[in-house]
Amino acid sequence: MSQKLFRNLRLVNSEFTGSEAKRAFIVEAGLITWMGSQNQIPKKLKPKKEFDLKNNLVFPSFIECHTHTVFAGSRAQEFEMRNQGVSYLEIAERGGGILSTVQATRATSAKSLTALTQKRVNNFLAQGVSTLEIKSGYGLDLKNEIKVLQVIKNLKGPRIISTFLGAHAKPAEFKTHEDYLQYLVTTVLPVVKKKKLSDRVDIFIENKFFEKSASQKYLEAAKKLGFAVTIHANQLSFSEGADLALELSAHSADHVIHLNENHIKAFAKSKTVAVLLPAADLYMRCAYPSARKLIDAGATVALATDFNPGSCPTQDLALVGLLARLEMKMSLPEVFKAYTSGAAQALGVSDAEGQLLVGKSANFISTAAELNDFFYSAGSTPKHQLFIRGNEIKSTIIARD
Amino acid sequence: MSQKLFRNLRLVNSEFTGSEAKRAFIVEAGLITWMGSQNQIPKKLKPKKEFDLKNNLVFPSFIECHTHTVFAGSRAQEFEMRNQGVSYLEIAERGGGILSTVQATRATSAKSLTALTQKRVNNFLAQGVSTLEIKSGYGLDLKNEIKVLQVIKNLKGPRIISTFLGAHAKPAEFKTHEDYLQYLVTTVLPVVKKKKLSDRVDIFIENKFFEKSASQKYLEAAKKLGFAVTIHANQLSFSEGADLALELSAHSADHVIHLNENHIKAFAKSKTVAVLLPAADLYMRCAYPSARKLIDAGATVALATDFNPGSCPTQDLALVGLLARLEMKMSLPEVFKAYTSGAAQALGVSDAEGQLLVGKSANFISTAAELNDFFYSAGSTPKHQLFIRGNEIKSTIIARD
Repeated sequence: MSQKLFRNLRLVNSEFTGSEAKRAFIVEAGLITWMGSQNQIPKKLKPKKEFDLKNNLVFPSFIECHTHTVFAGSRAQEFEMRNQGVSYLEIAERGGGILSTVQATRATSAKSLTALTQKRVNNFLAQGVSTLEIKSGYGLDLKNEIKVLQVIKNLKGPRIISTFLGAHAKPAEFKTHEDYLQYLVTTVLPVVKKKKLSDRVDIFIENKFFEKSASQKYLEAAKKLGFAVTIHANQLSFSEGADLALELSAHSADHVIHLNENHIKAFAKSKTVAVLLPAADLYMRCAYPSARKLIDAGATVALATDFNPGSCPTQDLALVGLLARLEMKMSLPEVFKAYTSGAAQALGVSDAEGQLLVGKSANFISTAAELNDFFYSAGSTPKHQLFIRGNEIKSTIIARD
Repeated sequence: MSQKLFRNLRLVNSEFTGSEAKRAFIVEAGLITWMGSQNQIPKKLKPKKEFDLKNNLVFPSFIECHTHTVFAGSRAQEFEMRNQGVSYLEIAERGGGILSTVQATRATSAKSLTALTQKRVNNFLAQGVSTLEIKSGYGLDLKNEIKVLQVIKNLKGPRIISTFLGAHAKPAEFKTHEDYLQYLVTTVLPVVKKKKLSDRVDIFIENKFFEKSASQKYLEAAKKLGFAVTIHANQLSFSEGADLALELSAHSADHVIHLNENHIKAFAKSKTVAVLLPAADLYMRCAYPSARKLIDAGATVALATDFNPGSCPTQDLALVGLLARLEMKMSLPEVFKAYTSGAAQALGVSDAEGQLLVGKSANFISTAAELNDFFYSAGSTPKHQLFIRGNEIKSTIIARD
């Protein structure tokens, strides 16, 4: 493989507190194979291509670690209902909510779903996202969950991490949540595994939805099949999802609005990442999670959009980071870390991504803007170039600047 | 002038609660000269051009009625300081805040300012804004206020309403706010008038800034010179700005977070519009104004971004409307009215804009999306075409969809 040299760049340090000028790195087969001062490039290295980054800032590109990007239909009308006072649980009980998206998604072909989803993926790409997690969970039966996972597999642009969220909601065909989880274990998970469509399992643990003991059995079965685990935890109440995530050494526990001091301590000791989704909290008018307590205790946090058609229909990373700063008092460097190394850990891809180091993927952002300009103006990403595995991504979508 | 026919459109009703299909209108010299069923176009009308709007929804385009779009420099670093606990007033007292933008703006040529500002104007245009208010207020002396107003005059795209906000902050050259207001009246306002650079005067009334009695003298002098009046009122405290706006029959009182029941009743009786700026309230972590009380009492409200480099560095109309819905419990139709007819009244342009009626400007949005899709996904405007005075605007900026 030929080598590419990137030089004349200001490399942002790993704490996102400053940068060092005149740095360079060499990329081979998508990985960084050498890094250092541009005045000390070893003679034996003979890169075929050189990229002058014009003294731009360079830092790891963003990792969006929690989305529900594959869906059909719209829940925009439901939003107006919710603002007029109808609760999320009430809407769900009336057959709206997630299940209305399930109906629309089941009725839509893989081809149409792919077209819908690819546009949304491009919107993430335009914001500097090089790795994108996407969950299934609007199929809720063998045929449709597999269809959705195959749509996810065919998407282009960023690296896609696919997560099986069959346990998103109980479809009407099943009487109990336990019966449905049993069906997922015996009928769906083995097919997901065999077709190599995902190696991560997620579940929405909440009172009245999937509760702790049934969820525990389900996740233990998934782990036996070789799946990694992540959990929608403690969003609406102290639902024990976070406890289970910590017990099972899950990759992440997501939402985690309702945490007590013991949870905070446990996160600090564990490798399980607390994934914070403040845009969803804005849309749901929830409290925001205790980011400061988690970070100050030493826990790893990530930030993500939670993009989905119901409770968080925005793809705006700038808003997520802005809310983290405003409402959760995260510093700007903490926001950058949460969207890079924190998110990489949440997805179990820290070995390859989230930091710019020798041996890791050359996934990075190059920009003439300052770090201060990011996560600042809602709806807007500063002008930048995105490189994935050393290749520049020419986005067809132009972000505001 | 030749006539243009727009047909096959679903015209949204004036309450934004529904639409009527197969409507048409004729535009001549930028104005709607006939409107009705497309099956009953009078024979005597012979439009030269026909536009089939493909059964799209058509409604008045947006009027953004409160911005500070002309500025140089960045206050992104200040935002991080504020999040780390330094107050807005403290930053101002340390010589930061507005005065740092004044310094940068004074040091920038009209040409450079025009280039910076035109990009921002294009960002509004891409969101369906056909009329854009822009305030001066980062010059704060004769030379630089005139420079900024001339920059505003040269902008392209939407109709621009220019507002003189010399009374934005006291520049260091003056000892007292009263002295500075006196200077504005005797030295600056006559030049603004003579050069026809603005016919509206705004002032930031707040304790420790411009206080009520001096402001009243200033605004009365401005009115004598023929200027209409608008006021930054009751943002940080019960500062009497709203009282003054109501006394002087101002076009609008903007921010109006601190209102009592008497204010609400007075707004309901007056033509002064309460301009609500919820994105600024988000950035400032203020309370949100009492939109429900104002609307329920019968007052006219408008919504706007308050786009500026310090307290609200976003241009995202979707976020503004979303916050209005979420945090101020405005219904979606109320949000649309606030961003069209309400904003037109706030700018004193209701005679020509804000509604689609015979005799008014043909400023409209045509979209295959639904009304529900607007003011819903932060950072995103549904795909649409914008027409200003009957001419399609081909925006060079592509919004997310």
